[in-house]
Amino acid sequence: MTSTGRVTLPIEVGMDEQIIELIQRLGADAVRNSDGTDLPAIAADLAVKIYATYFPARGDNEWAQTHTNESTHFYLMSPRVTSLRGGDLTIDIMDGYYEQQVSPDTDVDVRRMWQVHDRTTNTEVPVEQWDHEGRLVTVHNTIPGHVYTVNFFARQLWDSTQMYNYITNDWHLDPARQKQAPYDVRGTETWEYMKHTMNSWCEENPEIDVVRFTTFFYHFTLVFNTLGKEKFVDWFGYSASVSVAGLDAFEEEYGYRLTAEDFIDQGYYNNPFRSPSPRFKDWMDFQHRFVTSRAKELVDITHAHGKEAMMFLGDNWIGMEPYGEHFPEVGLDAVVGSVGSAATCRMISDIPGVKYTEGRFLPYFFPDVFNNEGDPIGEANQSWLNARRAIVRYPLDRMGYGGYLSLAVQFPAFVDRVEEICAEFRQIHEESQGTRPQNAPFTVGILNAWGKVRSWQTNMVAHALWYKQIYSYVGVIESLAGLPFDVKFYSFNDLRDGVPEEVGVLLNAGPAGTAFSGDVAWDDPELAATIRTWVAEGGAFIGIGEPSAYPKGGAFMQLSDVMGVEREVGLTLNTDKYDEPQGEHFITTDLSEEFYDGEGAGDVYSIAPDTQVLRMKDGSVQLATHEYGRGRAVYMSGLPYSTENSRLLHRALFWVTGREHDFSRFWYCENPELEVAYYPNVRKFLVYNNSEETQSSVVHGLGREWPVHLSPVGFLWMDLTD
Amino acid sequence: MTSTGRVTLPIEVGMDEQIIELIQRLGADAVRNSDGTDLPAIAADLAVKIYATYFPARGDNEWAQTHTNESTHFYLMSPRVTSLRGGDLTIDIMDGYYEQQVSPDTDVDVRRMWQVHDRTTNTEVPVEQWDHEGRLVTVHNTIPGHVYTVNFFARQLWDSTQMYNYITNDWHLDPARQKQAPYDVRGTETWEYMKHTMNSWCEENPEIDVVRFTTFFYHFTLVFNTLGKEKFVDWFGYSASVSVAGLDAFEEEYGYRLTAEDFIDQGYYNNPFRSPSPRFKDWMDFQHRFVTSRAKELVDITHAHGKEAMMFLGDNWIGMEPYGEHFPEVGLDAVVGSVGSAATCRMISDIPGVKYTEGRFLPYFFPDVFNNEGDPIGEANQSWLNARRAIVRYPLDRMGYGGYLSLAVQFPAFVDRVEEICAEFRQIHEESQGTRPQNAPFTVGILNAWGKVRSWQTNMVAHALWYKQIYSYVGVIESLAGLPFDVKFYSFNDLRDGVPEEVGVLLNAGPAGTAFSGDVAWDDPELAATIRTWVAEGGAFIGIGEPSAYPKGGAFMQLSDVMGVEREVGLTLNTDKYDEPQGEHFITTDLSEEFYDGEGAGDVYSIAPDTQVLRMKDGSVQLATHEYGRGRAVYMSGLPYSTENSRLLHRALFWVTGREHDFSRFWYCENPELEVAYYPNVRKFLVYNNSEETQSSVVHGLGREWPVHLSPVGFLWMDLTD
Repeated sequence: MTSTGRVTLPIEVGMDEQIIELIQRLGADAVRNSDGTDLPAIAADLAVKIYATYFPARGDNEWAQTHTNESTHFYLMSPRVTSLRGGDLTIDIMDGYYEQQVSPDTDVDVRRMWQVHDRTTNTEVPVEQWDHEGRLVTVHNTIPGHVYTVNFFARQLWDSTQMYNYITNDWHLDPARQKQAPYDVRGTETWEYMKHTMNSWCEENPEIDVVRFTTFFYHFTLVFNTLGKEKFVDWFGYSASVSVAGLDAFEEEYGYRLTAEDFIDQGYYNNPFRSPSPRFKDWMDFQHRFVTSRAKELVDITHAHGKEAMMFLGDNWIGMEPYGEHFPEVGLDAVVGSVGSAATCRMISDIPGVKYTEGRFLPYFFPDVFNNEGDPIGEANQSWLNARRAIVRYPLDRMGYGGYLSLAVQFPAFVDRVEEICAEFRQIHEESQGTRPQNAPFTVGILNAWGKVRSWQTNMVAHALWYKQIYSYVGVIESLAGLPFDVKFYSFNDLRDGVPEEVGVLLNAGPAGTAFSGDVAWDDPELAATIRTWVAEGGAFIGIGEPSAYPKGGAFMQLSDVMGVEREVGLTLNTDKYDEPQGEHFITTDLSEEFYDGEGAGDVYSIAPDTQVLRMKDGSVQLATHEYGRGRAVYMSGLPYSTENSRLLHRALFWVTGREHDFSRFWYCENPELEVAYYPNVRKFLVYNNSEETQSSVVHGLGREWPVHLSPVGFLWMDLTD
Repeated sequence: MTSTGRVTLPIEVGMDEQIIELIQRLGADAVRNSDGTDLPAIAADLAVKIYATYFPARGDNEWAQTHTNESTHFYLMSPRVTSLRGGDLTIDIMDGYYEQQVSPDTDVDVRRMWQVHDRTTNTEVPVEQWDHEGRLVTVHNTIPGHVYTVNFFARQLWDSTQMYNYITNDWHLDPARQKQAPYDVRGTETWEYMKHTMNSWCEENPEIDVVRFTTFFYHFTLVFNTLGKEKFVDWFGYSASVSVAGLDAFEEEYGYRLTAEDFIDQGYYNNPFRSPSPRFKDWMDFQHRFVTSRAKELVDITHAHGKEAMMFLGDNWIGMEPYGEHFPEVGLDAVVGSVGSAATCRMISDIPGVKYTEGRFLPYFFPDVFNNEGDPIGEANQSWLNARRAIVRYPLDRMGYGGYLSLAVQFPAFVDRVEEICAEFRQIHEESQGTRPQNAPFTVGILNAWGKVRSWQTNMVAHALWYKQIYSYVGVIESLAGLPFDVKFYSFNDLRDGVPEEVGVLLNAGPAGTAFSGDVAWDDPELAATIRTWVAEGGAFIGIGEPSAYPKGGAFMQLSDVMGVEREVGLTLNTDKYDEPQGEHFITTDLSEEFYDGEGAGDVYSIAPDTQVLRMKDGSVQLATHEYGRGRAVYMSGLPYSTENSRLLHRALFWVTGREHDFSRFWYCENPELEVAYYPNVRKFLVYNNSEETQSSVVHGLGREWPVHLSPVGFLWMDLTD
C-alpha cells in the first residue's frame, strides 16, 4: 500500500527537513501544533491541512481581570465540620481548596447563593442562622454532635487544564507563561468578546485550515487541594458550569430555581455514579442547549472564514454532550479525542452529526516515555491493539499523534513502527471501501440511568483512567467496542413503553447503589416487570456485577428471578447454599478453568434449581446461565477486559439470544486472541492478532474454515472474490 | 493436684469397670447419658450425680398424633414465583419443603393466617384475590412480570433436632426409632399433659439427680429441603414458635394483631442480621415471658422432687433467652452448652440467674473423629485452647464431654490428655479460690440493634459455625472472650439517655445493612450525636468493618468523622485518595507487617488530615487511629480471631481510652501467643500458652517482669505471696 492521508502529524519549529520526510513516510495530510509548540513557517508550504488549537474561554488574562463579574464559577462544599459543643460553629470554607484556583464569591447575594446544611439530619439550616465573613462562615445555635457543611459559590481563578499542565510541566520556571483565568460565555460582554475574537483570529490566521476547539466553554469538574494536587475530578461534572445568570435563566425557563444543593448533592456533585436527579437532568439539558447554541455560533464564524471546526473531546467540553440531542446542530466538521482504549475510541468514532472523527494515539511524544528506560514501541503497539479492535468495528476517519516530533525522531525504530501503523490504518479504510463489517443481527442494549447521553462512557470516572472499583465493569464496553454487535445505550426511561424493537439483549452492569446498575430506578415495579415479561417472551438479559440491585420485597437484585442468582448481603446467611459448578457450556468454550472476574461481585448464589452455574470462586457464583420463560439470561460477577473475557461476552450474547447455532455463521476465530471482521459488501475478511505473540488458528465463517497464522500484533486481509 | 469434681462423663451400658476407672482418673462427679445411649444400672452406685436428658415437647408420638390441633407450627414462605403472563398464577407452596417436616395447616382460618404478596411492589394481595386448595394457592388477576409469594402457616411434623439426628445417623435402619413429632406448650391439654408427664417422670426416675432439659418448647428455625437437607437455619429464629392461640393472646395483650408477614419478613424471617422490627421485638418479649413462665413450672416440679434442673443451651431454646429479663425467674439450677469457641463459652458462663454453668467440650466421642485418620487429641487441645481463654476470664463451673465412652477408651492417649485437661480445669478454680482475675477498669460496650439479649451472640448465624461473611466480625467477641475486660452488650436504645456511665469504649462491628452495624438505626441523628459528643468529651469508639454504615447526608458511615475514615461505595471515586501507611503505633506493637483482616471491608480511605493510617491493603485502609476532641477512635477493616489480632484489640482498647501507659500495669505478656491473668485477691497469676508450640516470653505486671517458658498448650501458676 502506498496511499497517503488520514494522518495528522504534530510538528514544531527547527526540523523542517525531517518534517518533509516524515509527512511522506507516514502519509500525513495534516499537521498541528501541540500545547507548548509553535507551527513552523514551513507549515503553509507543505500542501497539507494545518490545524491550530483554539481556546474560546481562556487565554486573555486582561479580559479576565477586567471582567471578573463574568468569570466562571464553581459550586463547592466546605469540609464537613462537626459541632462538638453546640452553639456557634465557624467553618473555614476554603479548608482543603487551593487559593490560586478557587475564590469564594461574596459579591453575589450570598444568602441566596450559598447554603448551610446540617448533614446529620441532612436538612438545610435557615439562612437567618448563619453569617459569613470572607472565607469564614459561622453557624449559630448548632446542635452538639451534628455535622455541618457550607455550599458556596466560588470564582474560578485558573483554567483547570492549563493549571494541570502548568503545575505538571513546571511552567512557573518560564516567565512567558501566564496562569490563564477562564471567563464565562454566559456573560453578555464576554460572549460578544468571544465572537469578536474568534472572527479576528480567523482573519489573522488565514493559513489555518482546521480550528481545533480545545474546547468550548465549561471545564469538567477538576479541583485542586491546598498542595496543588488533584482533589476531585469528574470528567463528566457540571459543577464548574454554574453562574448567577445561568441560574436566573434556568428559573425563568423551568419555573423553579436550582439551589446550591442541587449541584453539591451532599458532596457527591452529581457524579455519573449517582442516580441522576430530575433537577440535575434539567440543568444538563438546559446547559446542553445553551452551550451547543453558542458553540454553533463560533462554528458558524469558523465556517464563514472557510475553515473547518474540530472539537477536542475533553477539557472544556461540558454541556456539549456529543451524544446529546442538540450536538449535531452545532455543525462541527470533526471531533478529535484521545484514544485510551477501544471504548474511548468508540466514544469518539460513534459520535453522530460530524463529518469525520480523529483519534489521538498513544504514546504522546513526551520525555516520560521517550527516554532510555521507556518503551515507545511497546506503548504504540498496545495503543494500536486496543484501538484497532474498535476501529475495525466503527472506524475513526483519521488518526494522529501529539507531543514533540523532535523527540520522536530520536527513536528511529519507533518512527518505523508508526509508519506501519499509519499504513495499516489506511488499509482498513481502503480494503473495506468505506463499508462496515457484518454485525450480529440484533442490537446490544446497555441499560442504565443515563442511556444514550453516556454512550461508551459507562462506569467511567475520568476518561480511560483505571480505578479498582470500575475496571471489572469498564471491561464490558471495552469488549463490546471491538465485538461484532451494534451497541446502543438506553436509559430506564427508554423502556417506559417497552423494550425497543431493535434490542436483542439488554445488559445491565455496575455496582449496587449506582446509576449504572440502577439503584432507586428499580423501585419502580414496572421496570422489572417490563424486562421480565420481555425476557420471558423470548428476550435476553445479561447482568454483570450487581445488576438491578435495589433491596426490595425480599430481593437484593430485582431481576434475581430472571438471572437465577442472588447476592448475599448478610441478610440471607441462614439460607443454605449448595452451588457447585456444573460442567461446560457453549459460552465457556474458550474460557480457562478460572474465570478472571476482577473485583467480582462475590457472595452470589443460585436461587433457581435450573440455574446452571459455570464458574465459582470462594464459594461464590461467578458465571451462570438461566432459562427464563422463552428467553434466557446470563450472570457474570465482573468482566475486566481480556481477550478471553471478550470472547466469553461474544459467546454469551449469541447464546442468550438463542443464536448459538449462528455463532460461526457470523464469523469467529477459534483462538480468542484473534478476531475476524467480515465485510459482506466487498467479500473480504480481516483477521487480526490482539496479542504480542505469534498465533495460529482457524477462521470460521459462511460455513467455511480458513487456517491462519499471524505474527505478533499482525493482521491479514482475505479477499473471498479471488 | 489430686482434687476431683466439676466433670461430667458420658457413660453407657456394657463397660462398668472402665467407667469406674475413668471416673477416678478424670475426677468426674457426674455421669450422663447421650442421645443414643442408655444409662447403665451401675450408675446409681457410682456415688456421683446422674444427669438425664428430658424432652418436654416431644417423644410421645401417641400424644402428638391424637392432639394434632396442638402441634407446633411454622410460618413459612413459598418460593418466589413470577407471573410471566398475568392472569391466574398457581403457586405450590410446598415446593422446596420436606413433606415429612412441614404440612400446610388448612384447618385454621386460612384467609386470616395466610397471606399473598406481590413482592415486586412489596404489597399484600387482598384475600379476595386468591384461593387455595391443599398446597396450591391460585392468585387471580396477577400483574405480568410481578413476583408473588405465599406466607403460609404449617404444622411441624417432626422435631428439627431429632430429624437432623435421625437423618444424619441413619436411624431409619433401626425399627425401634420413631420420628418424633413436637407438640405446642400453648395447647391447653398439652400443657396439662406436659406437667403431668414431668411429674410422673420424676417419680419414676428417683435415681436421676439432674434433669437436663433438652430443651423446652420451641425449636430454633431449622427447615429442610425436599432432599431432606438443611434449607434454612437460624439458631435464634422464632419462626417455629407461632400458633393461633399465641397470636390471639398476643393481640389481646398488645392490642394489635401480628400477621404472617411479621414473621416471614420478606423471606428474611427476622434473622438476627435484620434490623429488628418493633413488632418482632414485641413477639420476642411476649414469647419470652410465656416460655420462661411455663419453664418455671416444670422446673418447680423438678425441684419438688429434689432434683436439679439444667437447661441445654440450644435446640428447643427459643423464648428462653438466657440474657432476657425474665430468664432468672425460671429458677434453673444450671445451663449446659456446647463449647465451640471462647465466645460460645462466655455465652454460657456469663448467663445470669443460675447456680452453675457447664460446658460440653469437643470432640464428641463420635466415629467421625475417633478413627484411624482422626486426630482426637488435636481436637481436644484446640477445643481447650479456645475455651481456656474464656474460662480464665469468666469460669464455667463444670465441664464435660458427650458421645460414646466406649469409643473414646479405644484411644488411651486421648484419655490421658482428657485427664490432664480435667485437672487443669479444676486447678483454675482451686488456685483462684473462686475469685476472678483483674480486668481493665472500664467496660467494653458492644453496640448494636440487639444489645444485652444477644450477649456473646453477635454476628452469628448458627452457634459457632463458620461463615465467610461473619468470621471477620465474630473474631471481635472471640478475642474479647479471653481478654481482661468487662464486656457488656448495649442496644442503640440503651444510649437514649446518653452513654451509660460504666462504658469506657463503645465498639460497633458488622457489615452494612445489618442489625450489628446498625443500618436504619443510624437514621436517627441523635444516635450519632450522642456518640460524637461522648467521644469528643473523652470517650472512645472502635469501629470494625462497616460500623455505623447508613448512607445519609453525604456520609456512608455516619461516624466517619469520629473514625477519620470513610468507605468508598462507588459514589466518591471522584475524590482523590492519597493514603499511605504512616509508621508504627502503640496498638500495632505486636502486629505483623501484614494485618490479617479476613474479608476486610475494603475500599476504605481517610477523610481527616489527622487520621493515622497504620495498615493498608490493595489501596484500602485496614487500620487507622483518630483523635476526636478529647477522645479517640480506632478503625479496623475486620478482625478475624488470631492471637495477634486479639492482642491488637487488647492494645487498641487501652489506647483508645487514653490508657496506653497503664497497659503493662494491667498485665500482659510480650509474646502475643501467651496470655496472663492476675488474681489480685490471691496474689497469683496464671500465664498460658495459646499455641501448640513452645513459647518463651516476659510477663509484665505490677511494674515487674517475669521471664516465662511454656510448653505447647502449657500453663504456669505463679504465686506472688511466696
